Amino acid sequence: MENSSGSRVTCLILRIITFVFLFISFFILVTTSKTVMGVRLHFNQFHAYRYVLATIIIGIILNLLQIAFSLFNTVKNGSGTILFDFFGDKFLSYLLATGMAAGFGLTVDLQTTDADDEYGEFFDKAYAASALLLFAFFCAAAVSILSSFALSNRA
Amino acid sequence: MENSSGSRVTCLILRIITFVFLFISFFILVTTSKTVMGVRLHFNQFHAYRYVLATIIIGIILNLLQIAFSLFNTVKNGSGTILFDFFGDKFLSYLLATGMAAGFGLTVDLQTTDADDEYGEFFDKAYAASALLLFAFFCAAAVSILSSFALSNRA
Repeated sequence: MENSSGSRVTCLILRIITFVFLFISFFILVTTSKTVMGVRLHFNQFHAYRYVLATIIIGIILNLLQIAFSLFNTVKNGSGTILFDFFGDKFLSYLLATGMAAGFGLTVDLQTTDADDEYGEFFDKAYAASALLLFAFFCAAAVSILSSFALSNRA
Repeated sequence: MENSSGSRVTCLILRIITFVFLFISFFILVTTSKTVMGVRLHFNQFHAYRYVLATIIIGIILNLLQIAFSLFNTVKNGSGTILFDFFGDKFLSYLLATGMAAGFGLTVDLQTTDADDEYGEFFDKAYAASALLLFAFFCAAAVSILSSFALSNRA
């Protein structure tokens, strides 16, 4: 029981860190915009960045739900949400992985078309948002591994 | 025991399907190239597609290793590779998720820059490779869920 409650606290901390990364990533992404000589580049002109934004928003909602359930369980000392945690964490980590990869995938090749580095700030912000999403993904993947192990301690 | 050997066969079948998807995706991606009026577009000019190719190759190697272990275990009726399967499947499914997302992320927005649809064939092939990777990811994610549950039947 000691071990199980320890891993529950670890999960909670990792989820809060995930939330912080997602939150900062959200604000960096929505301010990703740059105007050079009348030509405006805005993140919502790109499908990939819109997808990244969607993964961040869905990620934040799911993450907050899980933190709420987690706190509720810690107080009640129950274990009713093990399967919800398992599938939720799996879904969340896949979601963040795809969002992060879509963000990086577009940014890396889009930047090469900007030879004069006029839109440098735009790409720096897009990189930063993707990198924060990468860190959020690492935390979510770690939580997902822990919640898979929690499944095996269910009996 | 009946149940465990049934889920083992399901895993094996899903892994073979994953392999088939990855194999076809590989050949589609490496032939993704198109020349229009002397301007040649080749998949290896793009970082994102090179990353997709890397995920496919690493995916195929890991997948074949797992099929070999899986067959070996079925013959020997052992259960020595549950942890290897668990982490291998998790890694493989995250790898394919990122590869797929990077491929789609670049293709969707790159296609919008090609207003005359001159390079239509190029983007169709890139889409097809990403879509096959998406199917491979679905299979890998299903195997990953099964191998997480196998962890809980370990005791």
